[in-house]
Amino acid sequence: PGGIGSKLCGRLVLEKTAPIYLLPALDGDLKTMTFLQEVVDILLAYITESFDRETKVIDFHYPNELLQRNNWELQDEPETLDDILISCRATLKYAIKTAHPRYFNQLSTGLDMVGLAADWLTSTANTNMFTYEVAPVFVLLEYVTLKKMREIIGWEDGRGDGIFSPGGAISNMYAMLLARFKMFPEVKEKGMSSVPRLAAFTSEHVAAFNEMHQTGNVIRLREELSHFSIKKGAAALGIGTESVICIKADESGKMIPADLERKILEAKQKGFVPFFVSATAGTTVYGAFDPLIAISDICKKYQVWFHVDGAWGGSLIMSRMHKWKLDGVERSVLKLTWNPHKMMAVPLQCSALLVREEGLMQNCNQMHACYLFQQDKHYDLSYDTGDKALQCGRHVDIFKLWLMWRAKGTIGFEAQIDKCLELSEYLYNKIKDREGYEMVFNGKPQHTNVCFWYLPPGMRYMEDKEEKKKRLHKVAPVIKARMMEYGTTMVSYQPQGDKVNFFRMVISNPAATFEDIDFLIEEIERLGQDL
Amino acid sequence: PGGIGSKLCGRLVLEKTAPIYLLPALDGDLKTMTFLQEVVDILLAYITESFDRETKVIDFHYPNELLQRNNWELQDEPETLDDILISCRATLKYAIKTAHPRYFNQLSTGLDMVGLAADWLTSTANTNMFTYEVAPVFVLLEYVTLKKMREIIGWEDGRGDGIFSPGGAISNMYAMLLARFKMFPEVKEKGMSSVPRLAAFTSEHVAAFNEMHQTGNVIRLREELSHFSIKKGAAALGIGTESVICIKADESGKMIPADLERKILEAKQKGFVPFFVSATAGTTVYGAFDPLIAISDICKKYQVWFHVDGAWGGSLIMSRMHKWKLDGVERSVLKLTWNPHKMMAVPLQCSALLVREEGLMQNCNQMHACYLFQQDKHYDLSYDTGDKALQCGRHVDIFKLWLMWRAKGTIGFEAQIDKCLELSEYLYNKIKDREGYEMVFNGKPQHTNVCFWYLPPGMRYMEDKEEKKKRLHKVAPVIKARMMEYGTTMVSYQPQGDKVNFFRMVISNPAATFEDIDFLIEEIERLGQDL
Repeated sequence: PGGIGSKLCGRLVLEKTAPIYLLPALDGDLKTMTFLQEVVDILLAYITESFDRETKVIDFHYPNELLQRNNWELQDEPETLDDILISCRATLKYAIKTAHPRYFNQLSTGLDMVGLAADWLTSTANTNMFTYEVAPVFVLLEYVTLKKMREIIGWEDGRGDGIFSPGGAISNMYAMLLARFKMFPEVKEKGMSSVPRLAAFTSEHVAAFNEMHQTGNVIRLREELSHFSIKKGAAALGIGTESVICIKADESGKMIPADLERKILEAKQKGFVPFFVSATAGTTVYGAFDPLIAISDICKKYQVWFHVDGAWGGSLIMSRMHKWKLDGVERSVLKLTWNPHKMMAVPLQCSALLVREEGLMQNCNQMHACYLFQQDKHYDLSYDTGDKALQCGRHVDIFKLWLMWRAKGTIGFEAQIDKCLELSEYLYNKIKDREGYEMVFNGKPQHTNVCFWYLPPGMRYMEDKEEKKKRLHKVAPVIKARMMEYGTTMVSYQPQGDKVNFFRMVISNPAATFEDIDFLIEEIERLGQDL
Repeated sequence: PGGIGSKLCGRLVLEKTAPIYLLPALDGDLKTMTFLQEVVDILLAYITESFDRETKVIDFHYPNELLQRNNWELQDEPETLDDILISCRATLKYAIKTAHPRYFNQLSTGLDMVGLAADWLTSTANTNMFTYEVAPVFVLLEYVTLKKMREIIGWEDGRGDGIFSPGGAISNMYAMLLARFKMFPEVKEKGMSSVPRLAAFTSEHVAAFNEMHQTGNVIRLREELSHFSIKKGAAALGIGTESVICIKADESGKMIPADLERKILEAKQKGFVPFFVSATAGTTVYGAFDPLIAISDICKKYQVWFHVDGAWGGSLIMSRMHKWKLDGVERSVLKLTWNPHKMMAVPLQCSALLVREEGLMQNCNQMHACYLFQQDKHYDLSYDTGDKALQCGRHVDIFKLWLMWRAKGTIGFEAQIDKCLELSEYLYNKIKDREGYEMVFNGKPQHTNVCFWYLPPGMRYMEDKEEKKKRLHKVAPVIKARMMEYGTTMVSYQPQGDKVNFFRMVISNPAATFEDIDFLIEEIERLGQDL
């Protein structure tokens, strides 16, 4: 008595069993609305702050410190709504401001206001994608959007299929699953024991990882794109990681088609059946675009399914200036992964898998035997997506993309993408001949990725190459640690192959400006000059 | 010029490349805030309406009709913000009001205000669960919550592991993946060709499906729980659906342990290696709880991994009155699926997989060879969840559960769950001896599922049993169609085995009251009496 429940649960307290601890706000009463509005006010203030360059990107603390400062344990007894508001504020205080114009750490950055509004609406509608009946509008919007995306790729009349899945790794897993099923449909019932040993191919270069350090205290970040997800997928699907064969990449990170052909032949000789090539449109670290036309020719020659992982770079197809980088994508006979939550800045998560062949997903994933299909159906079942998914329930990821698309138009996305690429070219031009900078590979950025070393003054004329390398390896981690300490900006770094730690700058936040790029350079120099 | 961009994109227009179509609202200006507030106002009005029993649960239209009424195509050109607001209103107009106290159609119903607020905050924070660095607070809250859930299950000191995944089907797939890896770790590298033929077991009764019809126009809904997801998982993982062996269930839907033992022995004789038993705590249609203790004894005897799929019924462990139904769950040596988005009414999606053995998920899913693990790390890597997941990026599903738990306390969830079970018992008591009703199986509801036939007056004394069955099969579909036409309530129905279409009532919406149950009965009789 006297708890939240009795005050707020409105008509519930009229019930004879009136549970006093039942949560506030079940029936849209005034107190509920006040509470929601208070939360919204907190969120609006956070948004304003996030776009303010005077605010820290991050107020960093170590895990134990955060746990000690905050009592985040779950209790038997309820808290007051005021406590809940305090928890909301604390959560945002220690969150990374992913919308901040100087947050360059991830492939997904920025916060689009229409996308955010759409996500709030999605939460409020609180439904599930599995059938038209429970999500009529969202199912139709997914249908409309997937068709539009297929048209943009260049598939005839936008025909084909697709689904929004929980992220690029799952989309790539779907792709591998479909390729296997397409080649060996019996695998669905009989498993891998009915199938010869398979081989999948992807570029060695898409093995991307970032390791971030602070001297003394290391914070690690890994980004796993195609290579990792292809290996993870192969492990999960019972294919085995040893069946994933890495293809050599050239100096700028593009897969070498001749090596693909060699490895396919090698695999065949060893008795493997090559079934799947995952080309990458936009690798995580270098932002490289594999030569899709040459790769698709080889796939055709050896009858291997050609998949394009465009999780990062797929969005460039919306830019008239940059779409040539994806030439050949329309040949992906099977499928394409395209993550609008990255370069199109749609709120997380929003990852599409596009499939060229209609009916394939349904055949691969539906569980025929277990349904009773009745004969008197007049309803168009093509709108029921439940049975073609691996998931049962599926979160509504479509509305934010659809609403943003309406608000921007295709040309809005194009402008946004072009701007990010222009910013990265600006950065490249600014540092390529600047003293103290060395590019990791030559040539203009292919995507928004710019990979470079910063050499502090004391290191620039060192003669001992090995000693220089060793010291250089530690520079990016220390600068990054200091960035986080000051909270001024965040950019990722990693080693790659025999290359010691270098910065990988990426730009996907449309709020970033030329001044923010200038700031990044100044900040690197300010924080690194004494090293 | 003169478009949205130039009006709204604030400091962006100061850029020399000022892209005129760049989206509104990049930098927290007044217009942005006004737009967001307008969206919030639309959402608050929708919430108020959703809880109002005078409002329709659904304003149903067929797909083509909706597409014709609304111009939902994606265009090159941007729309105005006013158009965007109109789109938001239209989307909600045709949405199902899943929060409505008379929406009983799904296992996930209701809308918790604190859960909703938490989801809005999650969207605003717009980050990813893969490392502590990019989601410090959410990663810690996931850690705290999973530990609490393991304590409640009764695992010693809450030890173990776990993850929030995109739905029960994926959680069950994880479970099967872990069981296979635990028994045959070489499968990760070498694939299924290194492993004998496996056999997985689950109850035939968890094959749940709902088919909903309207005469003439059929709307179908399928719900796939453990059985389906186990089969889907087996197909995806390269195990094959033929390796999923169905165990008989008794009249009330519980798995028969003796049949499990028989089938395990049979599978062994045929040369299969039994590796995985998925017991169900709360089947989709009957709400049956498998006898976990007896099943776990058999699993122990034959050294098969024992998994409990508690997607629907797992939450009953929070109720002192009902937790006995899950006795033996603590013996699930490997893992447990528990979906707070169902019976705990957490907004979609929120599905936990709990794993007893620490390190198992990491070993199973991480891609060792591909990372460079450096030696100077002081940071506690156990908070980085990226490498134990199948996904790379992972949506933040934890905050809504955590915040609701703080607001309600454990006793709040308990009260909410008890109330739903009380309502279902109320329904059961009201109809079990009422004229015109027949229960599908005897005995009090085990979960909130109440399965029954309604026989219209003209059908009650029919002599021809076959003819009666035939006609009865059509009753539920017609009543359901009329419910949707009037929009007054929604409840699901389906056939099962040789049983013709019956209603399956479930209650997971804490906003439902005894009066709503009374209403449902009156409505069924009103809409069905002439049949």
